[in-house]
Amino acid sequence: MRELGEFGLIERIAALSRQQQSARGVVLGIGDDAALLRPRAGEDIVVSTDCSVEDVHFSWRHDAAAAIGRRALVASLSDLAAMGARPLGCTLALAVPAELEVRRLDGALRGLVREAGERGCPLVGGNISAARETSFTLTVLGSVARGRALRRDAARVGDALFVTGALGRSALARRRAQRSGRPGRFVPEPRLEAGRALSRLGVRVACIDLSDGLAADLRHLLAPRGLGADLESEALPRPRGFESACAAAGLDPLKTLSAGGEDYELLFALGDPWAGTRRLAELSKRLGLALSRIGRVSAVPGIRGLPGGGWRHFAATGRRRKT
Amino acid sequence: MRELGEFGLIERIAALSRQQQSARGVVLGIGDDAALLRPRAGEDIVVSTDCSVEDVHFSWRHDAAAAIGRRALVASLSDLAAMGARPLGCTLALAVPAELEVRRLDGALRGLVREAGERGCPLVGGNISAARETSFTLTVLGSVARGRALRRDAARVGDALFVTGALGRSALARRRAQRSGRPGRFVPEPRLEAGRALSRLGVRVACIDLSDGLAADLRHLLAPRGLGADLESEALPRPRGFESACAAAGLDPLKTLSAGGEDYELLFALGDPWAGTRRLAELSKRLGLALSRIGRVSAVPGIRGLPGGGWRHFAATGRRRKT
Repeated sequence: MRELGEFGLIERIAALSRQQQSARGVVLGIGDDAALLRPRAGEDIVVSTDCSVEDVHFSWRHDAAAAIGRRALVASLSDLAAMGARPLGCTLALAVPAELEVRRLDGALRGLVREAGERGCPLVGGNISAARETSFTLTVLGSVARGRALRRDAARVGDALFVTGALGRSALARRRAQRSGRPGRFVPEPRLEAGRALSRLGVRVACIDLSDGLAADLRHLLAPRGLGADLESEALPRPRGFESACAAAGLDPLKTLSAGGEDYELLFALGDPWAGTRRLAELSKRLGLALSRIGRVSAVPGIRGLPGGGWRHFAATGRRRKT
Repeated sequence: MRELGEFGLIERIAALSRQQQSARGVVLGIGDDAALLRPRAGEDIVVSTDCSVEDVHFSWRHDAAAAIGRRALVASLSDLAAMGARPLGCTLALAVPAELEVRRLDGALRGLVREAGERGCPLVGGNISAARETSFTLTVLGSVARGRALRRDAARVGDALFVTGALGRSALARRRAQRSGRPGRFVPEPRLEAGRALSRLGVRVACIDLSDGLAADLRHLLAPRGLGADLESEALPRPRGFESACAAAGLDPLKTLSAGGEDYELLFALGDPWAGTRRLAELSKRLGLALSRIGRVSAVPGIRGLPGGGWRHFAATGRRRKT
């Protein structure tokens, strides 16, 4: 890093993302005091910030560089998905130790910029600083028609609970990479299309993305109104061959499904389950994405049918994700 | 930090900023997957990200906790000022070591939230992570009427160059705090009102905020079109008693003016100096803020009339600001 320097690095990032700057919605990208973005008339701005820290969220030794960059952005894009928003652009605050190898950083930045391009979320600005450890702090901006955002506090007693896709993929991939000694390349997909479609479903939907694990995030979804949930653990959607893969990797399947974390699937509570379920079936077909009913919202606090767990920083056991 | 935990810390920040969540423009603040902000019709969104890292940008030992938090936000607010934008809201990505004393973090967060309240830029979201060193990454969102943003690339040959306020204050305060052993409490003021007024001046204005020092930031302002500048060093605005204060602190006055950094004054190039200067005189009176003419833009590359300098990360001499 030292020979490249701050402005060399900025130039490199600007060059990588230049072709994206012409995206609709970007008035001014990298190179001024701030970027300028243009939402459509009648849209609210959605903003979320997430941070990926070396040896907390990723490891240069265990993860492929491109996957590190992609996942850092996916964590934030997934928040846009959970609000039903479409991406407008993102900024990156990059902290790097002087002794970091340029090839590693380059790989991560290329991954990040590629993900940004594929998701229509161009990198429009940011900041670089020296630090003791590498971190990627991404702020994503999106937009959503007024009154259409999918809010957590919309959940009500009797709502049906659904998740998109399958659970446990990230935890399983992480464990496999650790065991094999090969760098982890798995990158979850942010459910942007599903989120936008849910915001237009015409039925009340409360939504959260699964970053900390199903058990922890379900608690966040229920918290605003002090609600509870009854789940059917056998209904939790799992990838093909999941049980045998878990056995081979030494993981408990149910714990992995409920506390694995970083799945970035959407968990949502559907009001009017009768009308909504039919529309969801059509939506699932159109998106080519499983939408699985896993339980219902209850007036009785607590979550039944799941082992506990979830990701917690500063836990007494240390800084690493527990799986 | 360890006993407080991630969710305890989030609750603390949310409580501190709760009364600001009702600000005009905030549809949804802390507590969901993302925040919702509402610009006025016909406005563009302005976004900028800045990072304050322990032992790079601040020191728990040398700086007062409240000043650390305030300055972290001022660095970003100043970018909004330099675009002529009004603040809408901000997010904070906070990285903290488990062993950080809660009282320090609390002091910094209180300072940050107070600054946010005073500038009309409520804290609407963020993210917390464990890390080896403390850092505050602030992303500010603002809005500006379409076509009114103050862009760097608007500078032209013959423009008059101005700066707001006075230079060298931050560098002098930093040196004094180091020498006295007392915690530094100086916080520069982001020139938000001046920036907004310049965007409505009715004369072409190119603008940048002074974060890295006059010499370095002037280069950034001239770079888009490969221009140069002729400055009059005796015209650089300095605080009262500056020369004797520099002598007492062992600082070179001219170097401190040109390379001190973190002044967060606005440097701007004014098209149509004849009509513009009259309007600036009125503006200066209305804002109670000095607007000093320091030179002019030239077609000949390079800056004449100033010693070199400016803040550079990853310089061979280490990670600390050179003054």
